[in-house]
Amino acid sequence: MEQVTEPEAIRSRLLAACRDGRTVGLVPTMGYFHDGHLALMRAARRDCDLVVTSIFVNPLQFGPGEDFGDYPRDLQRDREAAAQVDVDLLFCPAVETMYPEGFATFVRVERLTEVLCGRFRPGHFQGVATVVAKLFNLVPADFAYFGEKDAQQALVIKRMVRDLNFPIRVITVPTVREIDGLAMSSRNIYLSEAQRRAAPVLYQSLLEAKEAMERGERSGEALCHMVKRRIAREPEARLQYVEVRGLPDLEELTEVNKPALLAVAAYFGKARLIDNVILDPTGRVKSLNDV
Amino acid sequence: MEQVTEPEAIRSRLLAACRDGRTVGLVPTMGYFHDGHLALMRAARRDCDLVVTSIFVNPLQFGPGEDFGDYPRDLQRDREAAAQVDVDLLFCPAVETMYPEGFATFVRVERLTEVLCGRFRPGHFQGVATVVAKLFNLVPADFAYFGEKDAQQALVIKRMVRDLNFPIRVITVPTVREIDGLAMSSRNIYLSEAQRRAAPVLYQSLLEAKEAMERGERSGEALCHMVKRRIAREPEARLQYVEVRGLPDLEELTEVNKPALLAVAAYFGKARLIDNVILDPTGRVKSLNDV
Repeated sequence: MEQVTEPEAIRSRLLAACRDGRTVGLVPTMGYFHDGHLALMRAARRDCDLVVTSIFVNPLQFGPGEDFGDYPRDLQRDREAAAQVDVDLLFCPAVETMYPEGFATFVRVERLTEVLCGRFRPGHFQGVATVVAKLFNLVPADFAYFGEKDAQQALVIKRMVRDLNFPIRVITVPTVREIDGLAMSSRNIYLSEAQRRAAPVLYQSLLEAKEAMERGERSGEALCHMVKRRIAREPEARLQYVEVRGLPDLEELTEVNKPALLAVAAYFGKARLIDNVILDPTGRVKSLNDV
Repeated sequence: MEQVTEPEAIRSRLLAACRDGRTVGLVPTMGYFHDGHLALMRAARRDCDLVVTSIFVNPLQFGPGEDFGDYPRDLQRDREAAAQVDVDLLFCPAVETMYPEGFATFVRVERLTEVLCGRFRPGHFQGVATVVAKLFNLVPADFAYFGEKDAQQALVIKRMVRDLNFPIRVITVPTVREIDGLAMSSRNIYLSEAQRRAAPVLYQSLLEAKEAMERGERSGEALCHMVKRRIAREPEARLQYVEVRGLPDLEELTEVNKPALLAVAAYFGKARLIDNVILDPTGRVKSLNDV
């Protein structure tokens, strides 16, 4: 497995492969890999001739007071994990080369970014869209892989790709979970033992609401209320939001009469965790690739 | 000369050429060609194997009350002119395919866009950056050509290309002028006979200031004052701004002690015209390609 640090080098490194008609898959990450990241790389491996994984803890997507400084980093461990799933190329640019002095250009996706996490993390999705636009220009990839745990992020990137005509296809991969249902996240490392034991309440409450929807409950308010009540019973959890939103535009939805996202964010101590499930009364939509 | 309307078609049409290692030059325009546009196409013809000219009157870069509806359009005439300078491919997308319902993504360049024309046309450069980002993604070009008459636009695009790592090189081409010095512009068609006779005052006043700089005047305020006084004597002209700004960042500059842009905007009736000259005490910088 090769490692490239310089933005100028990554494109020329891949252009020969593109000219030969080989397909390239890009997995943009912030590193500190868990099985969720590895599932993205495996999906890319299945689809593409060449797999590129980028590791870049993107300062632009952290707000003031958020965990940019604390965000876990372990390049040696990540290298080994990526090699195991047969990644061809690791792209690890430095902050100073990605955002040199005088940097002034930002990609903003409206509406989609103003709800759910966007309401509590102003600037977050602009940071995500901007760095992903950069990566898409640096890495001439045919496919890019994003996890469904970060559903809003995947929808924002899909919208950006369509609107700005990036010649790349976005593929989403199902959330990978611990045995007790907790969605894998690099931030799970922040959890104390008690918080870790409590954290599966997020997915459990989402599943309960999803089952209620399948039994006929269509009221967004009632479904959210179920999640709220369940999480309120868990003393380690502080709910930030729970909302039902239409797919793929994340518009307000009072009745689940179309494919929807039931999404939740909660604090466990200093760890802010998110999770979501797709609600679809027709049962047709199983993943964000279907909307 | 081929003509393509569908955004999905333009990229696949060019990819074979790229794979063969042929270079592509893109000339983004809003049509209604004058010799300034043709100079861009000739420069592309000189440098590249394939020349693509896009014609798209971009609604996003017009403010409310500006001349989007009135902007002159004549595709038949443009086709003939482009064929004459040996353009290979004309790309003429429709507004509805460039900005379909639900479009929500915008590229914003900070600082550079907040001065000069940006101060009087809020949203203009965001519209320009967004459409050019789209064109750069649609047309896999090696070089893109912009006129120096729209100096701020060229600097904004250069900044965007660098910041977002677009794999394209921006080339600027000197302003083409009428015999009396008036910078060619599609908007010159709005001028009455009297206004047309008056309009060369813009370039004349800029040249006078440039000559004063060459004779040793370094004060930005004094140079701007010369331009103001000269334009004030012309009853058909209403000055909007005249400013000296540093290159390439368009920062404030009280002393011309480095390469600078002396830029002016004025109304002649309903026609808003702009022009500029480069001031460089060392004489080294002759074009925006040098900064």
